[in-house]
Amino acid sequence: MAGHQREFSFKDEAGSVVQEILRDYQGGRSIDRVAAAKEPDRNVIEKIIRELFQIVYPGYYMNPDTSLRVFNMDASISTIVDDIIINLSEQIEVALRYTDEFHTKSAESVQEESQRVTIEFMHRIPRVREYLDTDVQAMLDGDPAAYSKSEIILCYPGLYAMTVFRLAHELYLLKVPMIPRMMTEYAHDKTGVDLHPGATIGKYFMIDHATGIVVGETTIIGNHVKIYQGVTIGALSTRAGHNLQGKKRHPTIEDNVTIYSGASILGGETVIGHDVVIGGNCFITASIAPNSRVNVKNQESLLRKDIDDPLMWI
Amino acid sequence: MAGHQREFSFKDEAGSVVQEILRDYQGGRSIDRVAAAKEPDRNVIEKIIRELFQIVYPGYYMNPDTSLRVFNMDASISTIVDDIIINLSEQIEVALRYTDEFHTKSAESVQEESQRVTIEFMHRIPRVREYLDTDVQAMLDGDPAAYSKSEIILCYPGLYAMTVFRLAHELYLLKVPMIPRMMTEYAHDKTGVDLHPGATIGKYFMIDHATGIVVGETTIIGNHVKIYQGVTIGALSTRAGHNLQGKKRHPTIEDNVTIYSGASILGGETVIGHDVVIGGNCFITASIAPNSRVNVKNQESLLRKDIDDPLMWI
Amino acid sequence: MAGHQREFSFKDEAGSVVQEILRDYQGGRSIDRVAAAKEPDRNVIEKIIRELFQIVYPGYYMNPDTSLRVFNMDASISTIVDDIIINLSEQIEVALRYTDEFHTKSAESVQEESQRVTIEFMHRIPRVREYLDTDVQAMLDGDPAAYSKSEIILCYPGLYAMTVFRLAHELYLLKVPMIPRMMTEYAHDKTGVDLHPGATIGKYFMIDHATGIVVGETTIIGNHVKIYQGVTIGALSTRAGHNLQGKKRHPTIEDNVTIYSGASILGGETVIGHDVVIGGNCFITASIAPNSRVNVKNQESLLRKDIDDPLMWI
Repeated sequence: MAGHQREFSFKDEAGSVVQEILRDYQGGRSIDRVAAAKEPDRNVIEKIIRELFQIVYPGYYMNPDTSLRVFNMDASISTIVDDIIINLSEQIEVALRYTDEFHTKSAESVQEESQRVTIEFMHRIPRVREYLDTDVQAMLDGDPAAYSKSEIILCYPGLYAMTVFRLAHELYLLKVPMIPRMMTEYAHDKTGVDLHPGATIGKYFMIDHATGIVVGETTIIGNHVKIYQGVTIGALSTRAGHNLQGKKRHPTIEDNVTIYSGASILGGETVIGHDVVIGGNCFITASIAPNSRVNVKNQESLLRKDIDDPLMWI
Repeated sequence: MAGHQREFSFKDEAGSVVQEILRDYQGGRSIDRVAAAKEPDRNVIEKIIRELFQIVYPGYYMNPDTSLRVFNMDASISTIVDDIIINLSEQIEVALRYTDEFHTKSAESVQEESQRVTIEFMHRIPRVREYLDTDVQAMLDGDPAAYSKSEIILCYPGLYAMTVFRLAHELYLLKVPMIPRMMTEYAHDKTGVDLHPGATIGKYFMIDHATGIVVGETTIIGNHVKIYQGVTIGALSTRAGHNLQGKKRHPTIEDNVTIYSGASILGGETVIGHDVVIGGNCFITASIAPNSRVNVKNQESLLRKDIDDPLMWI
Repeated sequence: MAGHQREFSFKDEAGSVVQEILRDYQGGRSIDRVAAAKEPDRNVIEKIIRELFQIVYPGYYMNPDTSLRVFNMDASISTIVDDIIINLSEQIEVALRYTDEFHTKSAESVQEESQRVTIEFMHRIPRVREYLDTDVQAMLDGDPAAYSKSEIILCYPGLYAMTVFRLAHELYLLKVPMIPRMMTEYAHDKTGVDLHPGATIGKYFMIDHATGIVVGETTIIGNHVKIYQGVTIGALSTRAGHNLQGKKRHPTIEDNVTIYSGASILGGETVIGHDVVIGGNCFITASIAPNSRVNVKNQESLLRKDIDDPLMWI
């Protein structure tokens, strides 16, 4: 009987918890979303990413039981492309509605825009493939532990993150809300590499030992740049916060720059000249002249002279 | 016939492997668990985490096909809360039994304790929501790349890690074994942010570019603190190892402190005063006075004078 | 009618995308794999890893509904071992064929080699368990936040990464292509710890706060070594790239060395002597004498005198 009473009291307690939580929702916190809006579906977006890999790297990432379909590539690719187009245009439609809080556009025009953007995105895939081809080459050239391009395509988290980034970047340029960031954050989760979809990155980009890497939204990176684990290319001043939205807050890195592990390069006015080599663990807030080699021994010269100004820090 | 013989020999070899491994188990290694005990189920705990997100952020993280259930929020929330309560109390029961090696408690009392703790935990959700509401605000204010609170809630790994941490911290305070750590390690896997559930963290906490962040068990953090990627708030001396259990081994960070990327702050006696700004890549083992700005240029002053004493290092 | 026309044009556009992508495949990029080859299946490899954990840590990681099978350990282990052997030998066969581009070996000989290697690998599991037993002990001794060996085995990402590494290392020694790297990259994804399967690591190895850690292919590490978050044991010179394949490019770390968070140790000629303690955020390219304590205060002495030579950097 004691047990029976306990069981009932557990039930009662559970009921009071529900009431308390529902009451808490009346408080109108900014983290509540009471309007009935559908949000982009992260599972569908992950599926789209998987299928995009099959298109970008034909013959790789095939389903084990269908891998022989490469004998009939046309039909196989056609099926995958159709699937991506349908799912992606639906998710873009959801994202556009989700962020159009005042319902300024008709359902029809939102649908048409989603389809138009999706087609435009798909037309850019050959160009994305052209860039990724150079990234794979850079990783093979730069990493003595790499045995083949197949190993890089199938195993290297740096290439994984770059592939998702280059695809998401195109959607970002097409002004698709939310989805580009969801894509790069998915890759960030898997790899520890946080490439904001807004960054501009040239050809032959190499990430080695991909982990703990951050590249901010307004970064501009040239060709043949190599970065290692723990590198940050970030903003200098952040307490100004939202007022800085849209401004260039992250560095420019010119061609043929190598940045070793743990280095941080900060600030929208910071330019790292071409052919510079930056040693590990450097903390840089000033521009560096082309062809320089810098390391922690000359750390002081790497900082802006106005760095002690509290306004710069806050 | 040769193929047939090979196949048989493969079978025989496989059988001898089984025998060898079973023989190895007779050796009684400390990594073997021969008693028949059920351990907390990581899949169920991941499901509980997913459902807690639906409660903490109502209207977000809904199943795509049921997202319209927000029109009937009461029934929907009630179902999810019931599910959490039943699953969580079962997992807590398993964890309590698992760590009660000498079976000092009756099955009935363990069950009652599990239910009591579960209900108490659920009653704390409104307070957890109050704190998370301030964290979302801090991330919006501090990150110019953030476009909306929705984007932060759905995409930001820093908020994801903080949400799991704040929930796990309440279970840690309620002395639930194993499960709080399993929860934060799950978030650690997903985000690269390792917040020990024992840490005490105030309101308006902001993590930007969440990756490679470590906050130790006995850390105390005030309000309005911002930390960036690669920051460690850790212990100084670790070869003393287990003798230090329960002692304060990690720093105290007062209100309005900003800690830039790659900085390490170590030691239980280290206090970072209010309104301090710590530059990137600093290595700090001494206390810092309030309102200071410190960076790698004055690195020497950031170390304890007794740091060369080998006992401090070992 | 307008809507109907739009729908049709969406279809037409989708068709033109397929044609464009198929045309792009005619260009013969190096990232295309047009030959019909089966690649190692990452889902099967993840399943093998899960089952190996059940063998390495008997009584842990059991399926919740079958956890009582430990009463009948023999039958349970036998089933799991059989499953691993069949799946692993199949995957090794796929990997050997995949990398044997010129089909120099007969299908029969590849199959026999796969089975032989698989059996040899399984015979090494008791030895792997012997090493992992010491790793668990090291983590318990070194981390005051660890409450029990069970907690370490079930929750600690450092042990997870070490377990996958020690298993993958044996396959690497047996010259299995691709699969060892796929295994460690899977652990890298989950934990942020990038241990190349080629590295040689002694007993009682401890990784604390596992995240952002890199250990390169030709690293040699002794016994009782402890490393913390953000540590890199890497190569110094990488623009020489592929010419360095097979050469020792990574440091040697002798017994009883402790390396604190954020330190980088680079170069194949760099030897860190026994009983050295390396402070956080140090950047080291020179050898360190035994019994030394080094930290950022004497940073300059940690660099090779020839480090300014651009050839060393490139």
